[in-house]
Amino acid sequence: MPSEPAFDAGLLSPVTVGRDELVSDTAFLDALVRAEVALAGAYADVGVAPLEEVQRIEREFQADRGARTSTGLESSAIAEAAVAGGNPVIPLVSQLKARVDVDAGRWIHRGATSQDILDTAVILVAAGAVTQVRASLAHTTEWLLQLAERHRDDVAAARTLTQHAVPTTVGLRAVTWARAVRRAADRLAGLELPAQLGGAGGTLASFVEITGSVEAARALVARYADRLQLVTPDAPWHVTRWPITELADALVQAVDALGVFATDVATLSRTEIGELAEGVGGGSSAMPQKQNPTEAVLIRSAAIRAPHLGATLHTAAALAVDERPDGAWHAEWPTLRELLRLALGASAHASSLAAHLRVDTAAAARNLGATRGLILAERLSLVLGPEAAKAVVAEIEGGADAADAVRRAAAASGVDVDDLLDPARYTGAAAALVDDALRSRR
Amino acid sequence: MPSEPAFDAGLLSPVTVGRDELVSDTAFLDALVRAEVALAGAYADVGVAPLEEVQRIEREFQADRGARTSTGLESSAIAEAAVAGGNPVIPLVSQLKARVDVDAGRWIHRGATSQDILDTAVILVAAGAVTQVRASLAHTTEWLLQLAERHRDDVAAARTLTQHAVPTTVGLRAVTWARAVRRAADRLAGLELPAQLGGAGGTLASFVEITGSVEAARALVARYADRLQLVTPDAPWHVTRWPITELADALVQAVDALGVFATDVATLSRTEIGELAEGVGGGSSAMPQKQNPTEAVLIRSAAIRAPHLGATLHTAAALAVDERPDGAWHAEWPTLRELLRLALGASAHASSLAAHLRVDTAAAARNLGATRGLILAERLSLVLGPEAAKAVVAEIEGGADAADAVRRAAAASGVDVDDLLDPARYTGAAAALVDDALRSRR
Amino acid sequence: MPSEPAFDAGLLSPVTVGRDELVSDTAFLDALVRAEVALAGAYADVGVAPLEEVQRIEREFQADRGARTSTGLESSAIAEAAVAGGNPVIPLVSQLKARVDVDAGRWIHRGATSQDILDTAVILVAAGAVTQVRASLAHTTEWLLQLAERHRDDVAAARTLTQHAVPTTVGLRAVTWARAVRRAADRLAGLELPAQLGGAGGTLASFVEITGSVEAARALVARYADRLQLVTPDAPWHVTRWPITELADALVQAVDALGVFATDVATLSRTEIGELAEGVGGGSSAMPQKQNPTEAVLIRSAAIRAPHLGATLHTAAALAVDERPDGAWHAEWPTLRELLRLALGASAHASSLAAHLRVDTAAAARNLGATRGLILAERLSLVLGPEAAKAVVAEIEGGADAADAVRRAAAASGVDVDDLLDPARYTGAAAALVDDALRSRR
Amino acid sequence: MPSEPAFDAGLLSPVTVGRDELVSDTAFLDALVRAEVALAGAYADVGVAPLEEVQRIEREFQADRGARTSTGLESSAIAEAAVAGGNPVIPLVSQLKARVDVDAGRWIHRGATSQDILDTAVILVAAGAVTQVRASLAHTTEWLLQLAERHRDDVAAARTLTQHAVPTTVGLRAVTWARAVRRAADRLAGLELPAQLGGAGGTLASFVEITGSVEAARALVARYADRLQLVTPDAPWHVTRWPITELADALVQAVDALGVFATDVATLSRTEIGELAEGVGGGSSAMPQKQNPTEAVLIRSAAIRAPHLGATLHTAAALAVDERPDGAWHAEWPTLRELLRLALGASAHASSLAAHLRVDTAAAARNLGATRGLILAERLSLVLGPEAAKAVVAEIEGGADAADAVRRAAAASGVDVDDLLDPARYTGAAAALVDDALRSRR
Repeated sequence: MPSEPAFDAGLLSPVTVGRDELVSDTAFLDALVRAEVALAGAYADVGVAPLEEVQRIEREFQADRGARTSTGLESSAIAEAAVAGGNPVIPLVSQLKARVDVDAGRWIHRGATSQDILDTAVILVAAGAVTQVRASLAHTTEWLLQLAERHRDDVAAARTLTQHAVPTTVGLRAVTWARAVRRAADRLAGLELPAQLGGAGGTLASFVEITGSVEAARALVARYADRLQLVTPDAPWHVTRWPITELADALVQAVDALGVFATDVATLSRTEIGELAEGVGGGSSAMPQKQNPTEAVLIRSAAIRAPHLGATLHTAAALAVDERPDGAWHAEWPTLRELLRLALGASAHASSLAAHLRVDTAAAARNLGATRGLILAERLSLVLGPEAAKAVVAEIEGGADAADAVRRAAAASGVDVDDLLDPARYTGAAAALVDDALRSRR
Repeated sequence: MPSEPAFDAGLLSPVTVGRDELVSDTAFLDALVRAEVALAGAYADVGVAPLEEVQRIEREFQADRGARTSTGLESSAIAEAAVAGGNPVIPLVSQLKARVDVDAGRWIHRGATSQDILDTAVILVAAGAVTQVRASLAHTTEWLLQLAERHRDDVAAARTLTQHAVPTTVGLRAVTWARAVRRAADRLAGLELPAQLGGAGGTLASFVEITGSVEAARALVARYADRLQLVTPDAPWHVTRWPITELADALVQAVDALGVFATDVATLSRTEIGELAEGVGGGSSAMPQKQNPTEAVLIRSAAIRAPHLGATLHTAAALAVDERPDGAWHAEWPTLRELLRLALGASAHASSLAAHLRVDTAAAARNLGATRGLILAERLSLVLGPEAAKAVVAEIEGGADAADAVRRAAAASGVDVDDLLDPARYTGAAAALVDDALRSRR
Repeated sequence: MPSEPAFDAGLLSPVTVGRDELVSDTAFLDALVRAEVALAGAYADVGVAPLEEVQRIEREFQADRGARTSTGLESSAIAEAAVAGGNPVIPLVSQLKARVDVDAGRWIHRGATSQDILDTAVILVAAGAVTQVRASLAHTTEWLLQLAERHRDDVAAARTLTQHAVPTTVGLRAVTWARAVRRAADRLAGLELPAQLGGAGGTLASFVEITGSVEAARALVARYADRLQLVTPDAPWHVTRWPITELADALVQAVDALGVFATDVATLSRTEIGELAEGVGGGSSAMPQKQNPTEAVLIRSAAIRAPHLGATLHTAAALAVDERPDGAWHAEWPTLRELLRLALGASAHASSLAAHLRVDTAAAARNLGATRGLILAERLSLVLGPEAAKAVVAEIEGGADAADAVRRAAAASGVDVDDLLDPARYTGAAAALVDDALRSRR
Repeated sequence: MPSEPAFDAGLLSPVTVGRDELVSDTAFLDALVRAEVALAGAYADVGVAPLEEVQRIEREFQADRGARTSTGLESSAIAEAAVAGGNPVIPLVSQLKARVDVDAGRWIHRGATSQDILDTAVILVAAGAVTQVRASLAHTTEWLLQLAERHRDDVAAARTLTQHAVPTTVGLRAVTWARAVRRAADRLAGLELPAQLGGAGGTLASFVEITGSVEAARALVARYADRLQLVTPDAPWHVTRWPITELADALVQAVDALGVFATDVATLSRTEIGELAEGVGGGSSAMPQKQNPTEAVLIRSAAIRAPHLGATLHTAAALAVDERPDGAWHAEWPTLRELLRLALGASAHASSLAAHLRVDTAAAARNLGATRGLILAERLSLVLGPEAAKAVVAEIEGGADAADAVRRAAAASGVDVDDLLDPARYTGAAAALVDDALRSRR
């Protein structure tokens, strides 16, 4: 019997296939169960629930260390049952209670509102995914720094507005990518990922009622967060959605940084430029000459999408009304998941892309000469003065040899023509910037 | 043995669960196969491929009428194999060829580029989904018109900037929703959904080579489109993406219209307003008094997301470069699919919401009286003149009975106070607008 | 005395400077006045207002044919006074009334709500801008078709995923741009741009009260629309915002199409590619060798922004609640104006870019040879069969001369090697597609 | 003579009028000049430029302390001249040089690229605007905390999915708004706002050439940044745009937080709810009964737009290619400016809204009773047990008095019915959360 066909098994998402298990429905279902189990455990921690009852819950849903807590639950069945109430926690709680005895079952979802469990699960899943994304970003950074080290002094054309401008180095280019990736990784590292536990109206009233005091209720929140290794929230954040949008912003920033890297790779891999090539290029059945920059293309597909997903989450955040909004909250779930997915996929591919990227220094050198010395026009202007430089440039544009033209112009001034026209002598602080980045390596 | 867990089985997408099968990975896989089969068939149609060879392909992939053409193919396996080349067509073609003999296999994907097949499949899937969305929109419209008919003359408060403004009718409100939904449906009906067949560079060169002439190549395109019941394109649209963005725009417009309906339902269902209630309300386990407007909330969650998906497709369209873009094309697939999914889900829920919506005319009447006659201030101003009206309004605001105040002001003028203060006499063209809409019913 | 500094005189908007007067604050102020004058005139048309009184209004605000109706009004003063009520119509009406006698003044804004006048003004301004954008798009199309005609048979490399794929022609490329631009122009031409006149709650109640009947009120709407040369709306569209979003969609589609053209120009102008150059390139003071594709860059800056503006308008449309929304309406004004502005600027630059674009056919030919024949690998595969082609390709990749390699492989088969390796013989339907487009010229 | 009409003097932007001078074209022009003057000054600081020459520049453009440095420059003229080269720095430099003697003029823009000056000016303007936004957010927070203090124990209905859920307090609601605003303010405070100085290709080559060493060039950058009171960048960020997107993210987060506050105000100001009213409400000429929540509406208009502006900046960031991108950079300028403008306007209105917000505690109490005790259903369930509670709820829904129903159900259990049904006894940690926030006041 063929398995129930999945709605989305990645057919349309090559950038994430095989990299996104951490944010699958199964992972979310697991996180939902973990949140419920942690709540029961927290009740035991604060002395309200009998330890044995809670342990029966824990045993049922965490029988084997490392096993999925959601084993035996069908995410598609819960998904279907979720429609009536508008969220999956309602049917999940029924299923969980049915798996334990009535006494233990009392502690499942006790005093909680669906949003407590769902928001916490979202953060749990996000925490796992962020850890993975950070690892991939760290790998990407390291590969790029190694690349920078190897090509610290390999000169190439810097291009602005698509045109050759002045010389730069392959090393500086790699360091520039690396710095942006590291900045994004740092931002992910600095995220505050709080658990959610506020009860129906965000007042903790049910927990105060159950535990007997405000202090005990707040201790319950702290224990719940601790058990899940999440930050204890200062207050419920049912309608103050910065935990979601700060996360989203950092994820989009990461994908932006990867997008820049990928865009440069795609551009510099162009048939006519050829300074870079993917180590693991995608071929074409009919056109064997093609070395498609497939990983760069896939990363770019994520970079084009991510900003819009981030904006969706901000739109939802800005529309949070009352003590739980009428749609904005629901809009977050699939959107944040897709953004996490893109970050996972794009960062994994970026790490691979950086690890295997091939630099064709001969092509870089050849391109550098494409303007026959004019790439040094700015330097000529600084050294010879604007007027003399203009004359030299006009001569070169007219077909003259650059060295000859400069020699004529600089005859009287004792300028070292070879030095002046050597792109490697006009890379400014490029090497120093590379060295800075290498020193700051972690 | 439990089935391979799906990445997305709808756990985070209650608005679409059970309504989105038409745009699942399986549906896309099926459409990809249908496109390949149609291409082989078109070769037979133009007399290039031997009929028997093509029929062997057709038999293999369309054995039983109505059965999935993709039976036996695993979308998750193809998804994984798609990463290397960046799209699922490459591995799919290998699998398809492996299922038929070499002679027949020659006609699979012959002369085509991946984008030909993928774009065509996207349009095929979209065509099916659009048909379904249009049906749901038609049902929604009809239910709303029936609602309008029943409540043609039930007066209610019109609100602007959250405040009571003047009277309107429940009927006009329903007609306003219906008109917007119908406009969107008409736009969907007017879409041009072309097949794609241009070869590697959009020149049809391979097809000219294979068929022997430009005319035959173009006939091939026409037969291919005909077999799929799609529009024959005037030219390849590999990098002119209006077929995608016009589709997206119409889908977003549909979701916008449903969003307005849902937002009004959510608002008018507020505990303090209570003019509307969902027939099939979502309950709350802990708070049985709640009649959550769940379908409205779910539709709103789609309406918050859809514009961003549409914008993603426009961003991709605007970045299409060369003869196939380096990422923008890939960004389209999951984005358009998600937008189709939201339109399917939101329109299905809207139809259900409209069918079962309950109007509390007593609440509407009660709310209408909330300003004790001041909702007619504009009319007073028109009839009594601005100065006299201001005095009357001040009296009413001061606690006076509206009728008394007006009677005093209008004593000399012979105004019919009862008429003047009857909200039902100040609904303007509301009834006529309802009648217009009912007359235009299809 | 220096003039009051403008908030925005275009310093940050080079893509629109000098092209956006039609959508300036002054143009909006003028349109607001025109809407008010048209309403008064419509009252005369339906026999409710005395002609002389209305003529006094018309004389005051339209004294000289062609002059601005808003002469004497200060948009900055009205802007400031607009804050208290949240829209500029409220203070404008006061100023207009102050300019005429009381009897005439009665007919200014009579029965109208601010949204009637503002929405109508928005559409009026849009209508003017759309006419201008369509003209620019028509010019762009024509220049591109002329370009296509001149370069109908100039062969160039088609690139997919940044890599040379197969040959195409400069002509087909230009026609592809032109077709997308024309499609967008057609969509703009098909827009329905309705006036707005519904009164406070969209019921027309005030107009029925003033004119005495539903029929007269609807006649008033028709006359109002006619006077402004706008479409008479079937019903008020205060909260059914498709007139805004359909307009936005068409504008974004236009900018998308221009963005593709500009992106290709920027790409093909790269120093290493050099197939295209702007006729009026932007220079660089320090780097005289640079021929920046400035117009392409500016158009691209618009193309990156436009989708987000369109999405903003859809978000606003989807959130329209009640009979006038609490913020969504206000979000539209500056957003739609900016989108119109971008369309005006981008289309004007595109027309100029297309008119002066220079094609370097020698560079195109040189690039075509960059893969030393491998750009014909697909053809080799079709003609020689996949196995033989693979061997040939391997030989060429190994350094062999393409003609020699093919000759060896095709020795027995009588293939015409010169024909086989001539890119011009593998451009498929390119010329036919150019001819189609030229034939369809208008 | 009337002044040249401005393109945008705020006519369509009531939320920002009068609040946005800090980000006007004039402010940008001034910042551009300040950046150029600072660069000249930095050359003097590092001993390269003669002090007197630099002082002539400073005197010319900073004659009077506090005066605009750009006095005498016409932003509209520069805007027009900016089109040819695509940015305003090119014509500005010509104008600046024309204002000083040739010797001094050499130090204007020396070694710099347009992007150095423009990016620095953007950050300078942003820094000023952010300071102002932070002040407004601080005021908003303080007003909200005072509100929370005054209404710490005023009970009101918490609403979820539009329906009454459980009790909360007005104080907790105000604190929830305040916390989100403060979080956003903290994020703005933590921003890193670097100057930009990298030269044509981001290598500092020109500065190394001019100053004679890498060390001196980097000292130049540091002095330049110091003079402008901006952060010295670790490296040029021409194509690593996190300084722009982190700024944008924080601004959007601020507007989100204000949007939530405004949305709640608009909602709770509804005619039927009436718990809140703006102190400075917007009236309606024709409908004097209306107390439009104008400031809330205007803030919401900003909140609907801001996420899309943020996304535009991320899209631009992700597309930064080469050493200066071909359009993405240009897309940033007007977008970031508009986002700063919205943040300025929304925060100013939020401060005013918070300062004058009126709470109708009687309305809150009346609304709290709307479900005749059912708002305590959750508590009943916790205290009486789910089964007994269900029976009580059914009785109340059937029309029974809540106290009677509970008394019957709780007869045997000795529950204190008055306490149980007192909403003020079921507000959980609301008061503690308010106290926390008040304690953390700064």
